Parts: sequence; C-alpha cells; structure tokens
Amino acid sequence: MASVIHARTGREVRRLAREGFSGHTAGLAPGYVQGNLVILPEREAFDFLRFCQRNPKPCPLLAVSEPGDPHLPALGEDLDLRTDLPRYRLWREGALVDEPTDIRHLWRSDLVAFVLGCSFSFEEALLQAGIRLRHLECGCNVPMYRTTIACAPAGPFKGPMVVSMRPLSPADAIRAIVITARFPAVHGAPVHLGDPRAIGIADLDRPDYGDPVPLEPGELPVFWACGVTPQAVLEAARVPFAITHAPGCMLVTDRRNSELALA
Amino acid sequence: MASVIHARTGREVRRLAREGFSGHTAGLAPGYVQGNLVILPEREAFDFLRFCQRNPKPCPLLAVSEPGDPHLPALGEDLDLRTDLPRYRLWREGALVDEPTDIRHLWRSDLVAFVLGCSFSFEEALLQAGIRLRHLECGCNVPMYRTTIACAPAGPFKGPMVVSMRPLSPADAIRAIVITARFPAVHGAPVHLGDPRAIGIADLDRPDYGDPVPLEPGELPVFWACGVTPQAVLEAARVPFAITHAPGCMLVTDRRNSELALA
Repeated sequence: MASVIHARTGREVRRLAREGFSGHTAGLAPGYVQGNLVILPEREAFDFLRFCQRNPKPCPLLAVSEPGDPHLPALGEDLDLRTDLPRYRLWREGALVDEPTDIRHLWRSDLVAFVLGCSFSFEEALLQAGIRLRHLECGCNVPMYRTTIACAPAGPFKGPMVVSMRPLSPADAIRAIVITARFPAVHGAPVHLGDPRAIGIADLDRPDYGDPVPLEPGELPVFWACGVTPQAVLEAARVPFAITHAPGCMLVTDRRNSELALA
Repeated sequence: MASVIHARTGREVRRLAREGFSGHTAGLAPGYVQGNLVILPEREAFDFLRFCQRNPKPCPLLAVSEPGDPHLPALGEDLDLRTDLPRYRLWREGALVDEPTDIRHLWRSDLVAFVLGCSFSFEEALLQAGIRLRHLECGCNVPMYRTTIACAPAGPFKGPMVVSMRPLSPADAIRAIVITARFPAVHGAPVHLGDPRAIGIADLDRPDYGDPVPLEPGELPVFWACGVTPQAVLEAARVPFAITHAPGCMLVTDRRNSELALA
C-alpha cells in the first residue's frame, strides 16, 4: 500500500490523517518518532503498564495518557489520539472486529492510551550509519517470529516475545548492536543473533508475521524485540475491549528520532 | 607463571618492577590500566605513529613519549619506562635477541615510546557486568589468531590484524559488544563474530598465539582486535632496533580502567 502522500513533519501527518488519509506511515515525516498505539480501559491499564515496565525491550513506553484524556501533549501539542492515526483496529474479547479510521465514537472516559516505540526510529539510525536493511531494499515487511523467550507476565498479560529479524554481515551486526543500544526507547540492542533454533524459531523462511528475507552468504540473522509482542499478548489475553493502531498506520509524533539517543 | 606478588596500585607494581619483580602483571593492581609498550628510534617512530592512527582497533594509543624522554607523566608521575616494566624484549632486525628486566643500558636520546591499550581493561568491564570469560576461568591465555583482515599500512609497517577470541552465548555477545564499544582506547567493539573462516581462521583449535578455548554448545566465537598486532607488524618490518614489553609483563599505569569509558 504505497502512499503518494508527502508530509515533512509529524504534525502534517496527523493533520492529513484527521482529513481522511488512511494509508501507511512508513517513510512519512522522516526523522520524526512513530509509535505503536494501545488503548485499554483503566481496568486493564494498570496490568498492561506493569507488563510494559517488566518487558521494556518489546514494550518500550514513550508515553501514557491520563485516563479519559485523548491528548498527549508530550508527543504533540495538538495531538488527538481519536483522529490522528490513519487507521485503527478495534478488538473485543481478543478478536479483531473493525478497522475504523477515526475512533471518536468509541472514546470513553475510562480509556488509557499507551504509545510504544517502534523500530522505524532505530532503522533510521542504521541507514544513516550506512547499514543496508534488505527488507527495505526489497520493499517488503520485516520478518517477525514468535519465540520461546517468555515475557515477564503481569495480570492477564503474558506470552512469548515476538522478534523482528534483519540479516547482517558480522561487521554490520556489531555496528548495529552498538547503534541500537543507544536507543532503548525503541527496542534497544538485539535480544539474539545467530542460531534461530536457540530462541525457538524452526524456519527463518516462514515468519509468523511480515515477509521472509533470505540470508545471503556470510550473513547472520540478528533479532530485535518487536512491537508486535504487545498486540499478540493483548489478543491472547482476550481483554473485553482494546483499540490499537492498524499495522503500518502509526502515530507520528513531534519528537525527533535523534532525541531518543542516549548519547 | 603465577605470581604471589600483591600490588594494589600501578605505582606499587612499578616500584616492585624497579626492585626486581620480573613476573606477569595480570591480576595485579585491579582497576588500573595496563598497557602494551613499543619503543622505536625516532627514524621509525613517525611511520609507526601513522600506523597506529590508521589502525586504532589493534593499536589504540594511550600515550606517546617525547623523543629521548623515558618518562610519561600522563600515565604516572614517577613513571620511568626504562625500569618500571617487569620484563622487556629487545629486537634487532625483527629478531628477538634478549629479554632484559631493565633497559637503562639500551636507552638512547632518539627513542620514542608508545603505550597501547590492552584487553585487560575491557575484560574487567565484562567481568563486572557478569560476563564469563572462559580463558580466565581455565587459567589460560586468550587464543589469538592471524586473520586475512589487512591493517592499513604506513611506511614499513603493514600486515594482517591479529585478533583475540572469546566464546560467548549470543545474549552475552550482544552485551559484550555494547560494553566494549564504550572502550575505544582498549580495542573497542569486536571486529568479527561467528564464522572464523570469514576472516581467514581455518581452525579455532589451533591459535597462532595463546591457548585454545573450545566453544560450548550454543556459543559464538567473538573476535576483538589484539595488541599482538603491532608486535607481529614490527617483526615483519624487521626494524633495526625495537624494544617492547615481554608478553604478559605490561606497563601498569596510574590511570583507571573506568576513566577510559566513553560514558
């Protein structure tokens, strides 16, 4: 779903979404932080917040809203979580029931929004360092896999970590580890590299999400914790009501990727 | 060559060396920076300095002396390079000709001393982070290998990079990369991990220097640039006159390993 939309800032992307743009945000507003969105009733929100606190690599928290407040001024002064994403997903009892482009009619006074960091931010840093990311070169989605790495549970939220995989030469893998370690707010350093079976991945050619990206000779598979983890955990917990972003249709903020670097 | 010597500071080790201690410095003065020593006539010194500048991973410069001056106050106020190492090596035309414990009789007004960082410093940081280093646990020397990675040449100095290898689990390898990247003054991040053949190592069980340390199941070999590189390059260049430390008999300085961390 390539977009012909051009937007230079997070504010522009949000304005376009408010005016009807419903496509993917990859490549829009270069340099601005894009985030995963999870909205839950206050009843489940405290459990989910503890889950994020205990699993910072797959669930790096950028911001948590006040209950009932659809604004998040820390991420954008004008930001309205009900209208500013191109597309949402509505979940009831763990089942996907709708993909609305606006959630004003679903908003409630007890809802709490979580914005989680996304790998777009660290991929920008890798590209700027001259590291090739083949899933981008071939225009496909990064391959993602369920692993045998267990997340630390909290209330009803539990399950395996989902990871994304990028094939890299050993020299690039070393640089990518150093670079992404500087970005703990967007998944940080990898969780594994080398043998996929060591983390329960039977076949790299058959990802659970996204598209396969074959290894070239001499490359190692490098695995980062992935923002799909919280969505998988939400589904498995069958919470009565949840809203998330639709895949690829992220919240684009006013914060810069460069702000997220440790040093 | 285990030592029963106990010394808490670099100054104490240097005093002991001055008074006749001629053993290994590993484990002495914990927390203090130990360095590789290379002494060359001014005639070769500029070429060697350019070699170090071009190859900072194997040859991380901690200090360079003034020509003819055997002191290096930046590394120790009382430091005298002619007496303060337990043992030296004297080279003529690239051949080892003596292993004196004192080089006062060899000192000349045209000699320049180079002190290069050593992996003892980053190993301390790895151990403090709870990462197991098996060559230390089994009391042997780290295995080292000549590679097909070419150093950038300068004047007569050229040749392959020598690397040291430490077997690590993938999770520890990732942490070790992040930790050692903070220490560019002592070899920094690894230069390779995984397949040894990719850097020209035919058999991990047959190191060119040091002792073999077998991989345990699930471990990856991780390779760091090694301070043996400049010694191998000096030998190959057959310079008329050179003095180095004897293996394991390092210069112990007043600087702290923790000072060398970037952040």
